[in-house]
Amino acid sequence: MQSTKKILSALDVKPFTFSPPLFLSILLVVIIAIGTLLLKLPISTVHPISWLDALFLSTSASTVTGLSPFETGETFTFFGQVVLMLLIQIGGIGVMSFAVFFVILLGKKISIRQRQLMQEALNVPSIGGVIRLVSWILIFSFAIELIGAFFLAFRFVPEFGWGKGLFYGLFHSISGFNQAGFSLFPGSMHHYLGDPIVNLTMVTMITLGGIGFTVLAELLSTHRFRKLSLHTQVMVVGTLVINVLAVLAIFLLEYRNPNSLGPLSLGDKFWAAFFQGISPRTAGLTTIDPAGLSQASLLLTMLMMFIGAGSTSTSGGIKLTTFMIVIAQVFTFLKGRREVVINKRAVNHQVIVRAVSIISISIIVILIALFLLCISENQPFEVILFEVISAFGTAGESIGATAHLTPFGKVVIMGVMFFGKVGPLTLAFSVTRRSHVDIRYPDGEIYTG
Amino acid sequence: MQSTKKILSALDVKPFTFSPPLFLSILLVVIIAIGTLLLKLPISTVHPISWLDALFLSTSASTVTGLSPFETGETFTFFGQVVLMLLIQIGGIGVMSFAVFFVILLGKKISIRQRQLMQEALNVPSIGGVIRLVSWILIFSFAIELIGAFFLAFRFVPEFGWGKGLFYGLFHSISGFNQAGFSLFPGSMHHYLGDPIVNLTMVTMITLGGIGFTVLAELLSTHRFRKLSLHTQVMVVGTLVINVLAVLAIFLLEYRNPNSLGPLSLGDKFWAAFFQGISPRTAGLTTIDPAGLSQASLLLTMLMMFIGAGSTSTSGGIKLTTFMIVIAQVFTFLKGRREVVINKRAVNHQVIVRAVSIISISIIVILIALFLLCISENQPFEVILFEVISAFGTAGESIGATAHLTPFGKVVIMGVMFFGKVGPLTLAFSVTRRSHVDIRYPDGEIYTG
Ligand SMILES: [K+]
Ligand SMILES: [K+]
Repeated sequence: MQSTKKILSALDVKPFTFSPPLFLSILLVVIIAIGTLLLKLPISTVHPISWLDALFLSTSASTVTGLSPFETGETFTFFGQVVLMLLIQIGGIGVMSFAVFFVILLGKKISIRQRQLMQEALNVPSIGGVIRLVSWILIFSFAIELIGAFFLAFRFVPEFGWGKGLFYGLFHSISGFNQAGFSLFPGSMHHYLGDPIVNLTMVTMITLGGIGFTVLAELLSTHRFRKLSLHTQVMVVGTLVINVLAVLAIFLLEYRNPNSLGPLSLGDKFWAAFFQGISPRTAGLTTIDPAGLSQASLLLTMLMMFIGAGSTSTSGGIKLTTFMIVIAQVFTFLKGRREVVINKRAVNHQVIVRAVSIISISIIVILIALFLLCISENQPFEVILFEVISAFGTAGESIGATAHLTPFGKVVIMGVMFFGKVGPLTLAFSVTRRSHVDIRYPDGEIYTG
Repeated sequence: MQSTKKILSALDVKPFTFSPPLFLSILLVVIIAIGTLLLKLPISTVHPISWLDALFLSTSASTVTGLSPFETGETFTFFGQVVLMLLIQIGGIGVMSFAVFFVILLGKKISIRQRQLMQEALNVPSIGGVIRLVSWILIFSFAIELIGAFFLAFRFVPEFGWGKGLFYGLFHSISGFNQAGFSLFPGSMHHYLGDPIVNLTMVTMITLGGIGFTVLAELLSTHRFRKLSLHTQVMVVGTLVINVLAVLAIFLLEYRNPNSLGPLSLGDKFWAAFFQGISPRTAGLTTIDPAGLSQASLLLTMLMMFIGAGSTSTSGGIKLTTFMIVIAQVFTFLKGRREVVINKRAVNHQVIVRAVSIISISIIVILIALFLLCISENQPFEVILFEVISAFGTAGESIGATAHLTPFGKVVIMGVMFFGKVGPLTLAFSVTRRSHVDIRYPDGEIYTG
C-alpha cells in the first residue's frame, strides 16, 4: 500500500489538464469523426449514403448503440462492415479499458481514498498492476470474443461458407460482447429465433460484456460470494433477478400475442422470451420484431433499456447499481432508517446523492429530447419515447422511429446516444469536494453510472 | 415557546394509537364510502349508474381529481351535484385542514423540533392558536370561495337565471379552489374559453387554493419577501416561474395547431394558453379539449400534472417543493458542492432523502398502474399514460381514457387517485428515526409531498 501512495503522490505532481471524463468525451468525438469519414468512403457502402447518415452510423457504432436508419448488412460492403466492427470494438472495450485505466491511475479529481478503494477492489497494487489489469481486460475480452465467434461459426459457416461464416461469427460475437446491437442480418437475429447455439452464445456474450470488467475480474479471482466486494455482489444478484423476472414477464405477456410469441412453438416461445428478456437492457439485438410486442412488454423493455447493465461495462443507461442504490434508499426511508445498508455494508451518502443525480439528469435529458422530437417528428408518442430511451441506454432496439427520423431528429438521437454513453460515466466519476472529513461508518463502495 | 413545549409534552403523555397519515387514509375511505352511497341514491342521478361508477365518482370527488366516465352535469340531479360539491369541499379543504391540525398538534411521530419549526413558520404559539389557525383556514377558504362564486355569478346568473346561476358559480368556485377539476358544463369550461371574468376568477381560485395554506397564512402576515420562510419563498417564486413558462410554451406550441389554438382569435389564443398553462398542475379544468393538444404540449401537461401544486394545499402530485428540492440537489452535485443551499439557507439532508423517496415511490406506483392498464386496456399508450399521471396528480384532465376504462381499469385509476391524494402526504410527514443528533448547519425547512 505504501508504494502505491508514493506512486500516486508522484503522479499528482504533474498536473493533468483534462479531467478523465472530458478526455473520454473528446476521445469519443475523435473516434466518431474518423468513423464518419471511413463510412462515407465509396468503398464502404453499396450505394452512397449521406454525410448525416455516415455520422449517425458512426455515432451509433462508437457509442455501441445499434440504431440505424437502414439495414446495415445490405448497405455496407465488407470494408464498411469491418469499419463498423472496429468502431464497435474501440467504442466498447477500447473506451472502457481506457476509462478504467484513467479512473485508477490518472484521475486527478479522484480522491486518494477512492483510488485506494478501487485498487483494493481490483487487487491492483501498483502502476505495473494497473497496466497489467488493462492488458488483462483487453486480452480477456478478445479471448471471450474469439470463443463466441467460434461457437457462432458452427451455425454460420455451414450456412454462408468459410469466409463469410467466420466473419459473421466474429462480427456478431463482438457486437454481442460490446452490447452494440448491430447485426448484419436483415431484421436483426430474427432468423435464429429458435437456434440454441446462437441464442446461448449471444446471451452469454451479452451477459459477460454487460456485467462490467471489475466484476469479471473479481469473479475470476475470488470464488466465495461473501468475500466479493459489495459492488460485485449487487451486480451478480441484481443481474440474475432482473433477467429471470424479465424473461418470465415477456414469456407470459406475449404468450398469446399474434404479433410476437403467439404463432411460435413452445420451444421457440421460450427462446424468444429468453433473448428478449435479457438483450434489451443494453445489447439491443432482437430475435423477434419489438414493434410487435404488447404495450406492457414495451413498457418493460423501455424500463430495462433505461436501467442498462453494469458500471465499467460497455453499456449505456443509468446502470443497474445506480438503480438499485435508489431502490435501497427508498426502502431505507420507508423503514424509517437513516443509513442505507446493503448486505450489512453501509452505503456512503455521497454515493446516493450521485445515483440520484445521475438518474435525475438522465430523466431530464430524456424529457428534453422527447420534447424536441415530439415537435419535430410525426410519429406515435410511444414510438418516439421508445427510440429516445433506446438511444439513452445505448440499447439500439427500435419499434420503427429510426427509419423515419427527420434530419433534426437524427441529430437529437445522436446527442442522446452520446450522452447515454459518456453522461452517466462522467457523472459517476465526478467527485464532490469535501468540506471536511466526516466518515462515520465503514462504507461499502458501489460504483454507479 | 415555553408554554408550547409544556403543552406538547403534556400531549405526548397520552398515546395516540393511529399515526396521523393512517388516520387521514381511514378518514378518506369513510368519506368515499358515504359519498358512494349518496351518489348511488336514485335521487342523485337522472338515470341509474352502477355501484362501480358511484364509487369511482365518489373517489374522484373526494380526492379532488375530477376524472369521470360521463358528463357530471348531465348525469347528476341537483341533489347529486350538491353531494359532489360537498365531497369536493370535505375531501379538499376539510381533509387538508384536518391534516394541518394533526401535523401541528397531535402528530406523535413528528419530532418536537419539527413541530416547533412548523409552529414558528405559522406563528402558532399554543393549542388555542392551532385551533384558531384551522378555524382561520376554514373561514378564509369559505370567504375566498364565496368571493369566487360572486364573480362567477356575474357570468352565470344572466345565462341561467338566479337559482342555477348562483349554484353554478358556487360549484365552480369550490371546484377551482379545491383543485377538483369537476365542471357541470359539457366539455369542462370550453364554453368560457375567451371569457375574462371566468378565466381570471377560475385561475385566481386555482392559484390561491394550490399554493398551500401555510403559504397563504404567511403571505398574509408577512409582507417582506426576505422575512418569509424558505418554503414560502420557494413556493412563490416556483409557482410564478412554472406558470409563466407553461403559459408561454402552450401558446407557442399550439399557436398553429388546428385542433387547439389554431382556429382561435389572438385574444382567445391567449386566454386558452393562460388557462391550459396554469390549470393542469392540479386543477384539471380545461377551456380547450386536451385531446387536441400536440404531443409536446401533452408531454408538458403530464410533467405539470406529475409535479402538482404546493404542500398543505388540496392538490395531489409530488408537490412543487419536492420537485425543486431534487433539482437543487442535482445542481449542487453538478457544482461539486456537498450541501444543498437555497437562497442562503441549507436544506437538511433528510429533507432531500424524503423528496427523493417521494418521487421514486410515485414513479414506481405510476409505472405499476401503467403496466396493469397496458395489459387490461385497449387504448393508445399515451392516452393511458396521460390518464395515470392525471390520476396520480389528482389533476383530472383526460384525453379520452376515462370514458372507455374497463372495470379493472377503473379500479386501478381509483387506486392511483387515492395514492396521489394521501401517498405523498403520508410520506412527507413520516419522519426518520434519528440515531443521533447531527445537525451541523442552520437548516431552512422545506415541506415536501
Ligand atoms: K446496444
Ligand atoms: K383536479
